Amino acid sequence: MTLAPERKALPTTQKLFVDRWSPRAFSSAEISVEEVESLFDAARWAPSAYNSQPWRFMYARRGTAVWEKFLSWLVPFNQSWASQASVLVYVVSETHMLSPSGEKVISSTHAYDCGAAAMLLQLQATATGWAAHSMSGFDNEAAVKGLALPEGYAVHCAIAIGRQGNVQNLPEGLQAREKPSDRSPLSVLAWEGVFSDGPSGAAG
Amino acid sequence: MTLAPERKALPTTQKLFVDRWSPRAFSSAEISVEEVESLFDAARWAPSAYNSQPWRFMYARRGTAVWEKFLSWLVPFNQSWASQASVLVYVVSETHMLSPSGEKVISSTHAYDCGAAAMLLQLQATATGWAAHSMSGFDNEAAVKGLALPEGYAVHCAIAIGRQGNVQNLPEGLQAREKPSDRSPLSVLAWEGVFSDGPSGAAG
Repeated sequence: MTLAPERKALPTTQKLFVDRWSPRAFSSAEISVEEVESLFDAARWAPSAYNSQPWRFMYARRGTAVWEKFLSWLVPFNQSWASQASVLVYVVSETHMLSPSGEKVISSTHAYDCGAAAMLLQLQATATGWAAHSMSGFDNEAAVKGLALPEGYAVHCAIAIGRQGNVQNLPEGLQAREKPSDRSPLSVLAWEGVFSDGPSGAAG
Repeated sequence: MTLAPERKALPTTQKLFVDRWSPRAFSSAEISVEEVESLFDAARWAPSAYNSQPWRFMYARRGTAVWEKFLSWLVPFNQSWASQASVLVYVVSETHMLSPSGEKVISSTHAYDCGAAAMLLQLQATATGWAAHSMSGFDNEAAVKGLALPEGYAVHCAIAIGRQGNVQNLPEGLQAREKPSDRSPLSVLAWEGVFSDGPSGAAG
């Protein structure tokens, strides 16, 4: 996929992190189960509370029987471009875990832990020539119902993965937006000390 | 830091992901603000809902005025080893974001997005010779109060970062546990189709 040379990061920052971005133009390539699994294998290595590994990834490849169903839960805007992806993934978590004493308790970090695993998934995609685009824009209730999730599971995110395609394949209104997003400066996001030591605290 | 050659991953999986693990033995090295900032610079490049970047990282380096305070919110078990780390980080999120129409709305993915950013932080640490250990074991109420977080912010995780130390420096009960954790097989975590197509669905 195309990289993101215009992004300004410290020279120490891993190039893979800066080069990963979320295009919407996909080439409608096919993806094999083996290739999909190679992405999830990477996701496994995220840390989680008590190594509970709350993440579950349910996916549909384009052309399979479940594809249209998975696509239908996205908001129409996301359907308009994600329909050309190779695979759609819903990131689900098990909300409870076994405590060290063997009790079933709610995990305070199940969503957070899933985000970490999905980050590895997306980096692995970038590293192996796939592009991934995460979406919060889906009908959560429809996804929970459609995936037939039992109690104790939650859906966090949908991810479209494919080979990056030509920007001209996108709906016209989206073509100008097809570029890596920038980030806030470091000083806004991290500082030594408590809240009032940061920029929002100083302003407030 | 020591790597994790005993972990079994697909040969395609990025080595950095498999080699990252969460030791508890730290060498009590000092860390400069520049080095801390180089880790957070990496974290910035995570994706987030509407690029809202909800993550805020508040940190204390060992020996500074805020260090003891940051350490005190950890559960005693975590204090017993994290006291030798170089820096303690609390991962905080802004729970609301601006919608595309400019309205302040709750973000459905603020915790998930923070987990992604913290994953990059930890990978960057591994890549540059630092070790990081994430903890859900802290007193959330004490941390919220101690960090003086206003409404609309939540604490998700604490992370101890330092140079990996000798296992003999750990409290005796922890020495045998000082090794990379394993992961569930891929088939438990990812599958094509809805919930009932997976192993838990088949079993239920």
